[in-house]
Parts: sequence; C-alpha cells; structure tokens
Amino acid sequence: MAQDDPLAFGHQARAAFDWLGQDRTRRASMLDAIAGALEARRSEILNSTSNETALTVEELTPEFARMVGTLRMFAGVVREGSWVRAAVNAAVQSPQAAIGPNNDVRRMLVPLGAAAVFGASNFPLAYGVCGGDTASAFAAGCPVVVKEHPAHPKTGRLIHQIASGAVVALGGPALVLGYVRNEDPKDHAVARELVQNPVIEAVGFTGSYGGGMALHRIANEREGIVPVFAEMGSANTVFVSRNAVDRRGVAIADQLADSILARFGQQCTKPGLIFVRDLANAGHFVQRFVDRVNAAVGRDMLAPWVADAYRKRVSECVETGRVEVIARGSEQGGLRGGAAVLMRSRWEAWAYDETLHKEIFGPAAILINSGEHDEKEGLLGSTWDGNLASSWYVEDDDAKLKSRVRAARPSEMPLTGRIIVNGASTGVRVAHGMVHGGPQPSTNRPDTTAVGPLAIERWCRPVCYQNCPQDLLPPELQDTNPLGIMRIVNGEYTRAPLGPS
Amino acid sequence: MAQDDPLAFGHQARAAFDWLGQDRTRRASMLDAIAGALEARRSEILNSTSNETALTVEELTPEFARMVGTLRMFAGVVREGSWVRAAVNAAVQSPQAAIGPNNDVRRMLVPLGAAAVFGASNFPLAYGVCGGDTASAFAAGCPVVVKEHPAHPKTGRLIHQIASGAVVALGGPALVLGYVRNEDPKDHAVARELVQNPVIEAVGFTGSYGGGMALHRIANEREGIVPVFAEMGSANTVFVSRNAVDRRGVAIADQLADSILARFGQQCTKPGLIFVRDLANAGHFVQRFVDRVNAAVGRDMLAPWVADAYRKRVSECVETGRVEVIARGSEQGGLRGGAAVLMRSRWEAWAYDETLHKEIFGPAAILINSGEHDEKEGLLGSTWDGNLASSWYVEDDDAKLKSRVRAARPSEMPLTGRIIVNGASTGVRVAHGMVHGGPQPSTNRPDTTAVGPLAIERWCRPVCYQNCPQDLLPPELQDTNPLGIMRIVNGEYTRAPLGPS
Repeated sequence: MAQDDPLAFGHQARAAFDWLGQDRTRRASMLDAIAGALEARRSEILNSTSNETALTVEELTPEFARMVGTLRMFAGVVREGSWVRAAVNAAVQSPQAAIGPNNDVRRMLVPLGAAAVFGASNFPLAYGVCGGDTASAFAAGCPVVVKEHPAHPKTGRLIHQIASGAVVALGGPALVLGYVRNEDPKDHAVARELVQNPVIEAVGFTGSYGGGMALHRIANEREGIVPVFAEMGSANTVFVSRNAVDRRGVAIADQLADSILARFGQQCTKPGLIFVRDLANAGHFVQRFVDRVNAAVGRDMLAPWVADAYRKRVSECVETGRVEVIARGSEQGGLRGGAAVLMRSRWEAWAYDETLHKEIFGPAAILINSGEHDEKEGLLGSTWDGNLASSWYVEDDDAKLKSRVRAARPSEMPLTGRIIVNGASTGVRVAHGMVHGGPQPSTNRPDTTAVGPLAIERWCRPVCYQNCPQDLLPPELQDTNPLGIMRIVNGEYTRAPLGPS
Repeated sequence: MAQDDPLAFGHQARAAFDWLGQDRTRRASMLDAIAGALEARRSEILNSTSNETALTVEELTPEFARMVGTLRMFAGVVREGSWVRAAVNAAVQSPQAAIGPNNDVRRMLVPLGAAAVFGASNFPLAYGVCGGDTASAFAAGCPVVVKEHPAHPKTGRLIHQIASGAVVALGGPALVLGYVRNEDPKDHAVARELVQNPVIEAVGFTGSYGGGMALHRIANEREGIVPVFAEMGSANTVFVSRNAVDRRGVAIADQLADSILARFGQQCTKPGLIFVRDLANAGHFVQRFVDRVNAAVGRDMLAPWVADAYRKRVSECVETGRVEVIARGSEQGGLRGGAAVLMRSRWEAWAYDETLHKEIFGPAAILINSGEHDEKEGLLGSTWDGNLASSWYVEDDDAKLKSRVRAARPSEMPLTGRIIVNGASTGVRVAHGMVHGGPQPSTNRPDTTAVGPLAIERWCRPVCYQNCPQDLLPPELQDTNPLGIMRIVNGEYTRAPLGPS
C-alpha cells in the first residue's frame, strides 16, 4: 500500500495534487472521463455490487445513475468556476470609507491537499470509491485515497481499477485516486494509519456514529489536526398530525412503509421514529402499517456484521420493556438474514430511555403515541439528538404542528439538516438546495453537507491576496475577470460570484 | 455568574436566542445601537483601555474605529440579507434532469445558538467584548457569553456594561450579551466551565496556541461536541528579494521596523521571520534595521505575564546558539517592561530548530540569510507551520520569487491565510476580500476567517426545506423573494444570492 512508505507516498500525493491543479478544465474532463468509464462497464459494476451487498440490481440502478450524475455535476461546477467564492475589495477612492488600512484585498478558495475517503456499506456506489466525497474532493482539486470497505472489496477494487484507468489514460499520476485494502472488518489499523498519515489533509466518512467519532478523535490527536467530515447515524423523526392520519392514514402508512423497507431499511435517511397523536384511535393507519411490515419478505443484509448489529439493536430496544413488537416480516435464515420489525410505544415510556432514541440501522421503526408532545419543540428531550432528516405530515388546518415547521423562534428550529413536508425522508436529490447533514449525532460537522455542490467547500480554505499585482493574481481574482465569475455589486466596492452560492 | 445555574442559564440563553431571531432588523438595530453607545463613551473607554493595557490612546484610536466600524458593517450585512446563502432548486419540468428524486429543495443558513467568546489581550477593543467575534455572532443571531480577559477586566466590564445597556434599552434580555468574570490569569476553571456548558453551541477564541488548542480539546471532549474557532499564534514570514534589498533596502527596513514596533510588537500579524538572500551583502538594509531597533524605547507590555513570556521566549531563541542578537532597544524596568530585539541567523542554522520557527509574541524578529532557499516552496521545512500572513518584497524582474507568490502548482501554495506583496503584514482591513486565518498553528480552522463578513458563517449551519408550502417557508426562501436576496441563474433551476459571497 502506498502509505507504507510515507516519503514516497508524500511525493506521489504531491504529484497528484499538482496534476489536478495545473489546469482547471483538466479536473472537469477527468470527472467526465471517470463517469464515462464507469458507464461503459455498468452491468459488470451492478452485478458485482449486487453480489457483494445483497442489494438488487433494481435497487442499485438509480444509485448508479446518481454516482455518474454527481461526477458530471461536479465537472460542471468546476467548469462554471464560481465555487471559489471570489471576492474583491479594491482600494477605495476615499480611504476613510475602508475599515482599517485601505489595502486591495481579494479572496478565493484553494484546495487543502490529499483527502482520505471512507465510503459507506449501504451505498457502495453513491458513497463509494467514486461517490460524492471523492467527486467533490476531485472537483476542489484534492487527490483522494479511498479506504476499502470490507463489505464490498471486489466492487471497490473494480471501481477503483476502472476510475484509475480513466485517470491514467488522461496522463494522471496513480495517486490521484489511491486505494488501500481492508478486507478484515475487525482490522481498524488501516483506517488509523491512513488518518494519521501526515500527507492526509482532510477526511470524509460515511457510516456509523462510533466509526465516525473514532476518526474524528484520531484526526484531532495528530500534531497537525485535520478536519473530518463524518456523516453518521440518524434516527430520523416523523410527525403525523391527527388530521393527516384521519384523512389519509392509509396512504401515509404506505409511504412510510415503502421508505422503511426500501433497500431493506439500510439507509441513513430511513424514517425511524414515527410520532402520532392519539395512536389508539388511528386503527386504519396502524393496521395498514402492520400489514405492510408483516408482508415484508426477509432478506440478506449488507454484511454478516450488519445483520448481527441489527438483530442486537432490535433486541436491545425490546428488552427495555418500553416497546411492543406489533409486526414482523418473514425471517431470512443464515448469517446475513434479517426480518423487518415494527414496534409501538407511547411518549411516556419512550421519552426517558435513550436506547429508544438512537438509530436502528435496518428495516425497523417505532410508532409512538405522542399525546400532545408532537406539538412541543422540546419533543426529543435531549438537546443534541440531531437528525439528517425529519418529516412532518400536516394538513392546512394543523396550525400548531405547522408552527413547528415554520419555527418562528430560532430555539424551536428542528435539530435536523432537512425538513420535509408531507413526504418520506429517503431519496436525496443532488442539488444546491439540498442539505445532507445535521446536528450531532447525525454528523460531527453540521456546518456542511455531504451532498450537492456545496460539499466542495469541505476540501478548501480561503486565501487572501493583498496589494497583489494583476500578473501574480490567479485568474479567478484578476480585474479582467477572465473566467467570467465575478460581477460588480456595490459600484467598485465588491464583486461576488455569478453562479449559485 | 449566569452559568452557575445551568437550568436558569439555559432558559436565559433561549430567551436571548429567540429575541435576537424574532425580527431580522432588530439585530441590525442592536448592532448599530451598541456602536452608538460605545462611541458616546469613547474617551472613557480609550482611557480605561490604555490604563490597563499600556497601549497608548493613539494606538487604540484606530482600533476603536475598527470596533464600531465592524459592528456597523455587520448591521449592514444583516439588513442586506444575502449572507444566509439562500439556494432554491424547484422541482424541474423534466424529472429525468434531476439527480435523484425531483423534490423542491431550498437551503439557507440558520444560527447555531449561544456562542462563547474569548477575547485577546492585545486587541482589547477589536477582539474584545464587542469585537469581531461578538459582532459576527450577533449578526448570525447567536447570543454571546464573553469570558473576561484578566489583562483588562475593568475595560471588559465597562464595555459590557455599555453594550448591555444598549441591548436592554431596546428591550433585549440580559443574556444577549453575557459576561463571566475571570480576574485571575491562572484560573482556567472559568474557561473550562464555559466551554463545557451544554448551552454553548460554538466558541470563538483569539490568543495563544496553547490556549486555543486547550479549548479545542475541551470542546471535543463534550458529549455534544461544538466547533471552536481559535485564531492563535503565527510567526509571519517575510521574503525580501535580492533586487528589492538592493533598490529599496532602507525603505523596506523602515516599513518592517514600523510593523514590528507598532503596538510594541504585540500583534498576531507582526512580521517575525525575515528571509533575505545574501544578507552579508545587504549592509544598508541590515544597518537601518539595527538602527531602528536600537532606537526603540522600552515600554510596558500588555500584562506582567506577557512581558515574562516574551523575555523567556527571546532567551529560549538565544540559547539555541543559532541566532545572534544584533540590536536591542532600551530596557523598560519593572514586571511589565520589555525591550525590542533583533536577531540574526542563517538558513542552515535556523531551519533545523523548531524553537526558532514559532511566534515570538512581542517586539522581536529574526533576520535570516536564506541563501537560495527563499525561492523554494519547501522553505519552512515542516508541512504544518501555517501563518496568518506572509509578505513578499519583489521587483518586476524577480521571476523566481514571484513564482512562489503565483503558486502555479497547488503544492506550492504558501501555508498562509494572506499573501501580501510589497507590504508589511500588520493592519487588517475589514472587508469581504480579507482572510484573517490560516493553516495550523495560526488557527485550528483554516476554512474560516475571523475578520470580514464571511466570519458570520462560523456561527451557522445550513438547513434544507423539502417540498415545503410557501406559507411555511422562511421569507428568505419564498418564491416571491420578499427580501430581494435571490435571483434566477439558470432559467427556473437555481437561485443564488444577490449580495457578495
């Protein structure tokens, strides 16, 4: 593995960094080339992934489209160019108008250096070797070293081989996309060594809370600390109003059951805690939900240890004595098999046991009779139970529950990265307006997103040029605006990007 | 102190958070009112500050202007409104054009909650109770609790009393601007308790590397970790080309001496390491520098422990045997007294001892005969010796040194937050184009800046609203664009802020 020889690794990383940065259109071409190379071997990738993860080709097909779509989107972000957030303050005519000395100051984002990427077991394509972390780091100009995921090593190597081939075909150094093997899921030394390697300047991670926070700690123990962007576990709350249950309870039960069962519940945005007022009088809603979960066919999970952790986590919840299992799908035998589970509780039992607040990774959810607590902002008791996504099913006349969505007071702002109205939380659009992130424990960095163009900024830092002659300025900051990314905002004073923020 | 009763503190912080957020113009008015109230008692503040810090009223006068100017600048940022980085992706006509499900997704920044602010000893106004951290946190909508600086407790209390009075006069709760006392510089419990308080959602710090990293660690040991934005120590490198020395050596020596001696060297942007090729043949430059430092009158430093640390740090450098003292200003007696010092070294002696790489806080600098190393990007030896600011004195025909500024290859990008051409690093303009930050050890968060409008983003996180009806959306994200902050970029597809990025 490359990092076995730190000095050689450093030289290689540096060559890769410089190759990516030498020409800003090269990165865009490379992203497109990788997308094209992956598409050319689409069936092979889909079959390998399905074999290793037990996700079906049907389930993986939209994920494949998202992977290549994201690579091409970031190619577009690089070509458009405004992502650097160029800002220009020329010296002003009347120096007394400047706060401080009247220097010409110009700012833009520059890449940090090599990034280590830890993909997820559950999205082997969209959060894998060429997933969103890698695509956004490449777009920023950072080389990437991917740590192999032991749940799908063959797929990881296949994608790495195809993507590396595309890079090399363009003349790029091998370490533009490095890959370190890690077949044994119990071997954490590979991860530790990679994050401790002084060449690594940033870390992206998607996975469990324990795994993400362990990397966060390792990165903060280094002499030169580096940022870790960990997208971790999330319980994902759902609030269903009395009126919504009464008027369309069956449809909502179907939508939530679809969302919970899709990819056999192995999604970080799976709805996990469903609060309904007066659940005792929502028989049609509950019955439909129960029928759907009972009808769910057992299947293999992503890996034996994922199935094992799922079974333990469900047992842990049941053993609190604060939930009852009201539906269970058919059991799939074997080390990787699992069954869907629906549990039921009530606010008074649920609220005071943190075991029931945390994510259950797999096809399980808890229906909670919320009483009047659904309308209170303090619903989750703890101040740091952050979510990636929260749904509200409301009708026009649900004034109080709607006021929770509106959050007129900042202290009532839901502790979530994404607020969804009348929809389920699974399915993440890749777009400027998306936030895939949220307060701890869903991430360790709620100021960022793992999805969408904004994700590029995780791999950057701003630099200011002061009183710098035009010929020494990067083109992004020159007066002639050769990249076309700036415009004058307040007379001569400030320029801002043309493109989307 | 407020945080002695965590529950009461929590209620107060929440009331303050909601008061700030209830009306976006209120925050702007409050910032203006605080600026006005401080200006009304300008002489009293300047005298108190000068008495406590030994900085002269003349030195403090521009800093006072910067403090009130920054408060008013952030009032303008809040009124203009585009700082929230609103981005709108409506559902598109052809769903296959969306990457992922074709949901309407809209994103903006929201405030994190109460911020703890640790001001600096050396800028008791601009980085004090109502300095840039407080002003930017207020602008974002975050209440602030300031930890008293033991070097100027009377000034801190005076400013707090005036600013609180302005807040209360507007009907604001007391904890919009909290203040915890800390008279004893050896008592670190106050700082620890504040950062550990669960009400605190973010921390701003300006001061030493040791202090900043200690807070960073405490914040990362919490159950709910919070971000720390620590602006710490920086050696601030200067490169003077052979041609520049030959043609204007005396003027450059004057400019650097002015910069080193201003505020008696107690500035985080003081030039500390000055590299000149063939220093042996730069007699006129060296002589002028020596004359200026020899002529510098000794004076009191900010506090006894600052003077003590300065003397020890200079001794530590001298004791390496790798520098010689070539100039020393007159000595000021007493516990707080200090003298300016100019040292001289050469690359071969300097490079291999980290003692000589670190900041010397006070009126001292090292002139280093760089040989040909000034033109090499690996000059600093270590990969993590980040600077807040670096200066290059170059002439038109200095191709090689200019190529270091231009940094055509990203691996050659100077490890600094600000690159200055033909100027000294002290004096920080407050503007969009400024970056006051940089790689470790100058900060722990090189992705941010402590100065300028961009500093507001440190106190925020993005939130996405998915498929949210117009009446539940915040005005920033509504189709009718009531705040006037959005514009259509690509047809219906994306909207971006009007204002400066």
